[in-house]
Amino acid sequence: MAICRELAGEKWVLMTTAQTPTNIAVIKYWGKRDEALILPVNDSISVTLDPSHLCTITTVAVSPDFEKDRMWLNRKEISLSGARYQNCLREIRSRANDVEDEEKKIKIAKKDWEKLHVYIDSYNNFPTAAGLASSAAGFACLVFALANLMNVKEDHSQLSAIARQGSGSACRSLYGGFVKWNMGKEKDGSDSLAIQLADEKHWDDLVIIIAVVSSRQKETSSTSGMRETVETSLLLQHRAKEIVPKRVLAMEEAIKNRDFASFAQLTCNDSNQFHAVCLDTSPPIFYMNDTSHRIISLVEKWNRSEGEPQVAYTFDAGPNSVLIARNRKAAVSLLQRLLFYFPPNAETVLDSYVLGDKSILQDAGIKSVEDIESLPQPPEINSSSQKYQGDVSYFICTKPGKGPVVLPESESLLDPKTGLPKNL
Amino acid sequence: MAICRELAGEKWVLMTTAQTPTNIAVIKYWGKRDEALILPVNDSISVTLDPSHLCTITTVAVSPDFEKDRMWLNRKEISLSGARYQNCLREIRSRANDVEDEEKKIKIAKKDWEKLHVYIDSYNNFPTAAGLASSAAGFACLVFALANLMNVKEDHSQLSAIARQGSGSACRSLYGGFVKWNMGKEKDGSDSLAIQLADEKHWDDLVIIIAVVSSRQKETSSTSGMRETVETSLLLQHRAKEIVPKRVLAMEEAIKNRDFASFAQLTCNDSNQFHAVCLDTSPPIFYMNDTSHRIISLVEKWNRSEGEPQVAYTFDAGPNSVLIARNRKAAVSLLQRLLFYFPPNAETVLDSYVLGDKSILQDAGIKSVEDIESLPQPPEINSSSQKYQGDVSYFICTKPGKGPVVLPESESLLDPKTGLPKNL
Repeated sequence: MAICRELAGEKWVLMTTAQTPTNIAVIKYWGKRDEALILPVNDSISVTLDPSHLCTITTVAVSPDFEKDRMWLNRKEISLSGARYQNCLREIRSRANDVEDEEKKIKIAKKDWEKLHVYIDSYNNFPTAAGLASSAAGFACLVFALANLMNVKEDHSQLSAIARQGSGSACRSLYGGFVKWNMGKEKDGSDSLAIQLADEKHWDDLVIIIAVVSSRQKETSSTSGMRETVETSLLLQHRAKEIVPKRVLAMEEAIKNRDFASFAQLTCNDSNQFHAVCLDTSPPIFYMNDTSHRIISLVEKWNRSEGEPQVAYTFDAGPNSVLIARNRKAAVSLLQRLLFYFPPNAETVLDSYVLGDKSILQDAGIKSVEDIESLPQPPEINSSSQKYQGDVSYFICTKPGKGPVVLPESESLLDPKTGLPKNL
Repeated sequence: MAICRELAGEKWVLMTTAQTPTNIAVIKYWGKRDEALILPVNDSISVTLDPSHLCTITTVAVSPDFEKDRMWLNRKEISLSGARYQNCLREIRSRANDVEDEEKKIKIAKKDWEKLHVYIDSYNNFPTAAGLASSAAGFACLVFALANLMNVKEDHSQLSAIARQGSGSACRSLYGGFVKWNMGKEKDGSDSLAIQLADEKHWDDLVIIIAVVSSRQKETSSTSGMRETVETSLLLQHRAKEIVPKRVLAMEEAIKNRDFASFAQLTCNDSNQFHAVCLDTSPPIFYMNDTSHRIISLVEKWNRSEGEPQVAYTFDAGPNSVLIARNRKAAVSLLQRLLFYFPPNAETVLDSYVLGDKSILQDAGIKSVEDIESLPQPPEINSSSQKYQGDVSYFICTKPGKGPVVLPESESLLDPKTGLPKNL
């Protein structure tokens, strides 16, 4: 291994730890026009979720002692040889600059970065298997942390174009609040990047409840799913070229004006249309299941009975439902309805059934599983309706949140002496 | 009540009994361009199902004693005041001709029909609630039987344009075999009618198995469903104008050449696209449920493993699956797979679980529910897979079948003396 002369023999580890949020698309990304560069067939818009409930934390470290790049994800070492990781590492390295840490007496010259290796440790504060866009937060955090470590001067938008090459939707996790991914026009993808439409304080009434739905089926990965849709759906191009451009403009306007009725209508319609083009794929792709359908029916019925939308729903490449309530009052009523229809299994304790911001549970007057059992039937239902115990694994109460941040060294996942994971 | 002078006081009942098949669309009808006349936004193509397993039988009677038009459907009297019934009755009456029954010494002049009233008794030889296109067979049978009674000279295509005004897909039940409903261009709907592409003998290898799927949900009626799709889906017009015309040509070609691979691909794709535009409706319409999805997965996996399609699937406005096997051998293998994954509930007897042509069951080597339990796992499945006991209510084995026929008087549902239902 060639280690740069100036640094050879030195004993130090330089580290950065960062936290990056997940995001949920309200105008969906589905279909690539370039598979290698991850360039989409249409613009998309997302809401960033509060990282206190859903985020990735990543520590990146560099040391002249490291003999190769290594990565740990959720406590397990994984291979970095895939093109998506290699693209991100290469793009960030090529933008590295001089770094000087006076306290630790470390000096790394711009040209040294090509020869130095990094260790990466990343973990999600939520179950990875739950299908909650962990790769979006993961690649955004990797790029953001490395950029910080290597003193990369590019702004968040330019970093988003790098994160995009790891996972398309990762580019939208470089900002908090409301984010737009411009599909761009350039062949090299340089203008396919994220911009912030509004920060999380712009519309802080919104409350988000995620229903993590139990699924017995193995789902089609979004990478292969969208490839198959591009290859076989006769509706996708019409959606991408004729429908989404207008929806994106309308959604920008709805967000700007905090117009919940329009926001909800656009969000629900676009989620349904994304799943429609999945169904129009050959063979067809089903991400929603009967539980997803029941949650949609519950929301549609309630919204109609109220005369104006209280809640928007959206579903990504899986059966989980992301529900966006217009305000806290609506969120409390929503949670009551959800718990009424989807009570936990007998052995489940309340504390592990409703996660995240539990104050919404308190406002809903629910202190125990018994309180769920005595919830009244929602007034919009005429006849006594069926319950679906156990069909939801758990709920997460959250809200729109902030973008990536650098965390203090005390939060590091890697040992500052060895650069190896602390928790191995 | 004004009864024509010549007939007043006479004591006779003149009757006709007819049998008409149901049909399943392989290129779907979804969306009207004229609600009142029932004119569709695109052509559709169907396969007529064997009336020995699925049909409507209707007796129509006329007598100078009848004081108003009356109708019984599946043993219950129903109102004829709806526009759909009124349209059919008016159109048929206006085409009535002189009728003479020498044996019974009855003479009805063309002009008398305007003043005479009819009794109608109709019943389906399959459960109405099962969602098996009972209204298609019903209106076709009503129009066909009345036309026969009233000596209407119009051919089946012209009658189909009348049946269409009762229920759109009814027009396709005027023929056996493979039928096309031309959407037509005229404002009055006169050219929106069915033609026969090929009779049932043209492609008699095909075997059809229907899985009647248990549903806990109340479904959106197809009338209101398609209205909502026309009003809100942004994908429907693209489907109707750009996609279906090409598919119709390709399907006509596939039927002409008995090209099962093309037939299956087009049938499955068009079923999925119909459900995609339902999902693109606001609020979204779900007709397929998890069981429907599992049947699709089973067929897709098996077709892929065989290298060429063995079975096509199609779903109408409900969760029931209509499976078209390329030949008897494929149908036997299909039935084994279906029974393996969807065994009957413990209390169910085999005889009520597989209906219709039970010889397929014999060929599959299944003589009892125990034989279902010992069916081997299909070879295309690697791991031991889950079973879904009770998720299918029953199966019907059938095949493409013939068009409407007049039945002998012995089959009449009405009493030849009183004109009232025999089975009341």
